[in-house]
Amino acid sequence: MGNERLDEKTISTEPIFEGKVISLQIDTVELPDGSQATREIIKHPGAVAVVAIVKDRLLLVDQYRQAMGRPELEIPAGKLEKGEDPLEAAKRELQEETGYTCGKITLLHSFYTSPGFADEIIHLYLAEELTAGAMSPDEDEFLEIIEATYDEVQRYISEGRISDAKTLLAFYYWQLKRLQEQSRNAAAVE
Amino acid sequence: MGNERLDEKTISTEPIFEGKVISLQIDTVELPDGSQATREIIKHPGAVAVVAIVKDRLLLVDQYRQAMGRPELEIPAGKLEKGEDPLEAAKRELQEETGYTCGKITLLHSFYTSPGFADEIIHLYLAEELTAGAMSPDEDEFLEIIEATYDEVQRYISEGRISDAKTLLAFYYWQLKRLQEQSRNAAAVE
Repeated sequence: MGNERLDEKTISTEPIFEGKVISLQIDTVELPDGSQATREIIKHPGAVAVVAIVKDRLLLVDQYRQAMGRPELEIPAGKLEKGEDPLEAAKRELQEETGYTCGKITLLHSFYTSPGFADEIIHLYLAEELTAGAMSPDEDEFLEIIEATYDEVQRYISEGRISDAKTLLAFYYWQLKRLQEQSRNAAAVE
Repeated sequence: MGNERLDEKTISTEPIFEGKVISLQIDTVELPDGSQATREIIKHPGAVAVVAIVKDRLLLVDQYRQAMGRPELEIPAGKLEKGEDPLEAAKRELQEETGYTCGKITLLHSFYTSPGFADEIIHLYLAEELTAGAMSPDEDEFLEIIEATYDEVQRYISEGRISDAKTLLAFYYWQLKRLQEQSRNAAAVE
């Protein structure tokens, strides 16, 4: 898979920082023309995120984001634990953050968030057949759940209260699903 | 804007690394219950990305990504230069990476890629009225342009050759636009 003419070879890797969540290294690479360059690379354990729609409302989590300097509304999400299966992680995060358990869960996409500098990959799931229950957030996690209608989600996006890639993707997914259903219903009526 | 009950206060910031592209710091924060926690934060200059569809083909750039360890197909994109206006940056990156200039350009979304650990924001534009011209990539940038049909984009996604958030968002945008046009055309025929 891919285009070998563009390949870069790793010459050396200098570890810079190892944190609780991310680590940072500087890779020296050989470019296709034989010259060298450096790349600042963040290593991340990967994450899961969940699209969960309960009675025409999207489950959102309101949570402070230090990187943004404010709280933000996002779909339920969290980091993979060491060796954890993404599907199990998705069920776990959904339950911890919203209390909901699901009877059915399907992978929609696995995507890189910032391929220019980070290896973080998010596995985005659709959770269905949802049953309400008790939340159990992590100790240093303070969050509130919002169940938002389609129009509310649209408004949160225009207000900038929803402004991250995975939640936008979730909204696009919902929008597409609704349009496809409308087309099907219109075709059935004709 | 936002939910003050969830606010975290920054107690101190420890700079760890300052690179060519990103920098890393550790923030100590006070949580809503008064306890403290640390947050590993990446600072990034921000970026632009461009949805450009020429005669029913999406412009894609094939480029090696060291973080992923392989080449990937993405929509044209690049970092903001210091003090640069995002709209000007979008026109510049489109021209540098694909050779195309545009008569019309519109902001679709500005979104955070990884709000859990990075302040990177991508401004995603729709470029229209496109005119072909000569590429002028950066010195250490090796890339190839692909003009992909809708079906090809769909295949690249299922093969994993397209696997980043901004390019998935671009495809969802295209899919929605096509569905909306189809609905309009169907309504006009009735």
